[in-house]
Amino acid sequence: MDQDSLLRLLAAGNGGYISGEEISRSLRVSRTAVWKSISDLRRLGYEIEAHPRLGYRLLARPDKLLPAEVRLGLKTARFGQVVHHFNSITSTNDAARELAERGAPEGTLVVAEEQKSGRGRRGRAWSSPPGVGIWASLVLRPPLLPVQAPLLTLTAAVAGAEAIWSVAGLPAGIKWPNDLLIGGRKVAGILTEMRAELDQVVYVVLGIGINVNTPSFPTELEATATSLYREGGKQVSRRLLLQAFLERFEFWYDRLPQEAEEMRSRWRELSLTLGRRVTVISPNFTVSGLAKNIDREGALLLETENGDLVRILSGDVSLR
Amino acid sequence: MDQDSLLRLLAAGNGGYISGEEISRSLRVSRTAVWKSISDLRRLGYEIEAHPRLGYRLLARPDKLLPAEVRLGLKTARFGQVVHHFNSITSTNDAARELAERGAPEGTLVVAEEQKSGRGRRGRAWSSPPGVGIWASLVLRPPLLPVQAPLLTLTAAVAGAEAIWSVAGLPAGIKWPNDLLIGGRKVAGILTEMRAELDQVVYVVLGIGINVNTPSFPTELEATATSLYREGGKQVSRRLLLQAFLERFEFWYDRLPQEAEEMRSRWRELSLTLGRRVTVISPNFTVSGLAKNIDREGALLLETENGDLVRILSGDVSLR
Repeated sequence: MDQDSLLRLLAAGNGGYISGEEISRSLRVSRTAVWKSISDLRRLGYEIEAHPRLGYRLLARPDKLLPAEVRLGLKTARFGQVVHHFNSITSTNDAARELAERGAPEGTLVVAEEQKSGRGRRGRAWSSPPGVGIWASLVLRPPLLPVQAPLLTLTAAVAGAEAIWSVAGLPAGIKWPNDLLIGGRKVAGILTEMRAELDQVVYVVLGIGINVNTPSFPTELEATATSLYREGGKQVSRRLLLQAFLERFEFWYDRLPQEAEEMRSRWRELSLTLGRRVTVISPNFTVSGLAKNIDREGALLLETENGDLVRILSGDVSLR
Repeated sequence: MDQDSLLRLLAAGNGGYISGEEISRSLRVSRTAVWKSISDLRRLGYEIEAHPRLGYRLLARPDKLLPAEVRLGLKTARFGQVVHHFNSITSTNDAARELAERGAPEGTLVVAEEQKSGRGRRGRAWSSPPGVGIWASLVLRPPLLPVQAPLLTLTAAVAGAEAIWSVAGLPAGIKWPNDLLIGGRKVAGILTEMRAELDQVVYVVLGIGINVNTPSFPTELEATATSLYREGGKQVSRRLLLQAFLERFEFWYDRLPQEAEEMRSRWRELSLTLGRRVTVISPNFTVSGLAKNIDREGALLLETENGDLVRILSGDVSLR
């Protein structure tokens, strides 16, 4: 029996009862099958009251990003329609890569309550404590050349910022290339990995980490990290936030690469980097200048003091 | 006992005898250990005569790209110093990818006598019959950005052309981006695959296929494919050719990316594409023009009829 449909029926009751008979009729399954599925949902953490005469009533849903929760009301065609949920995992990107190698379709989502070794760019650690964040990775099979792959990071950053604005009402901005900040502190990060031939992307795994309801941070992160809860003073639904991200991301993604310019102007609006004097540090160089623009492929264009325009593909930006 | 050293001693004899005692002393192992290693070599296909009084004599070496054969006399620091040899395999690139995922060091070589499903760019088949070609893949961990990875294809093409010139004395030229031609027919191809984060290459697998002693081609390939044997009229040593390729490739590779310009000028000298009117066909476009140059990242610069300079990252070139 289709668990998603049962959950949709129960949730549509808005705390009211729905009879076993009605469920059975609506989903075209036996009363016994209904009872079995209710038990399954309870085992996943759903609180469901069963009244001998009135039927079933959904009292509480688990605060977990379970597949049925992610899909409930999700308005996408592909992104997040297949969900692999883990209570604890080393890294959602690693799990998504394995799925991608085994042929997982575009939009397959890996989501975990907790990452034991969450990663950021260049192998840096990303703190991912249980139940308070979105730690998720999507399998993508974009019609792009490897050199165009940075567009995906820009696109995901736009979608992430839009989702935070619409669900939490907080002003998240984008720091090139892959961070979302609120009030100068990092609230989300994106990690894009790919397998490619030189003129063909085989797959991309796009990971996003959002500090949603993190109550506090270790001392060493206090100055640089924040969460939506700390910024807005109230709990934010991880489910709604993840859904908004998936919807906005799919929206922009489906317009790549032909309509990338629209996405780039949205990126520019949300950017915290452009128009600022910045210093970019990479393993190979350090360069300072005025951040003028991003180009077609997502590189940062920096104007140095002597008027040179430098094109930067990679590095850590410090805003000053 | 070190098989490479034993083989080096035997090969240094140039068909003459070397006594078991001398081997035992030189390699600091027991006479029994020598005898055991001689047996191992025989099992691999080496013909070794054992004379009760004179000692051992190497009569013939197997015509296979066995690890000890590849390493014998190989003047590289890393490329081909670790060799995985297969009599038959699906694809050396696939095997090298698996090794790379498990942490294989740079320069690890996978070589096969035969590939059952050898691949070219974009999943095209590459015919790899047993014993007549070089079907090999190298694991690389270059200090490059993903956008610079096309440099590796250029570099390998230069090394391949140089190896063919020096070992077979035949004029191989480079057709952008990844083919080596003699007399207008394809004699070798390169397939570069990578795993990368957006600002860091994790590893590259660079595969090369060279038609060395292929006596004839199926009718459908007759017009477009050739081998060194068909062009030069004599058998070419696969071992010497592979070694020359590894040596030239490591030489140029170690100069990337700082001294890439030297490699690019060598590429230009060997190019069959530059200075010609060509048509480039890709899934997304077709464009014709005069091939003017390659740029820093290996893209082809084409001047169209109305004077526009078009930068092409990927596609199939037809020379006219």
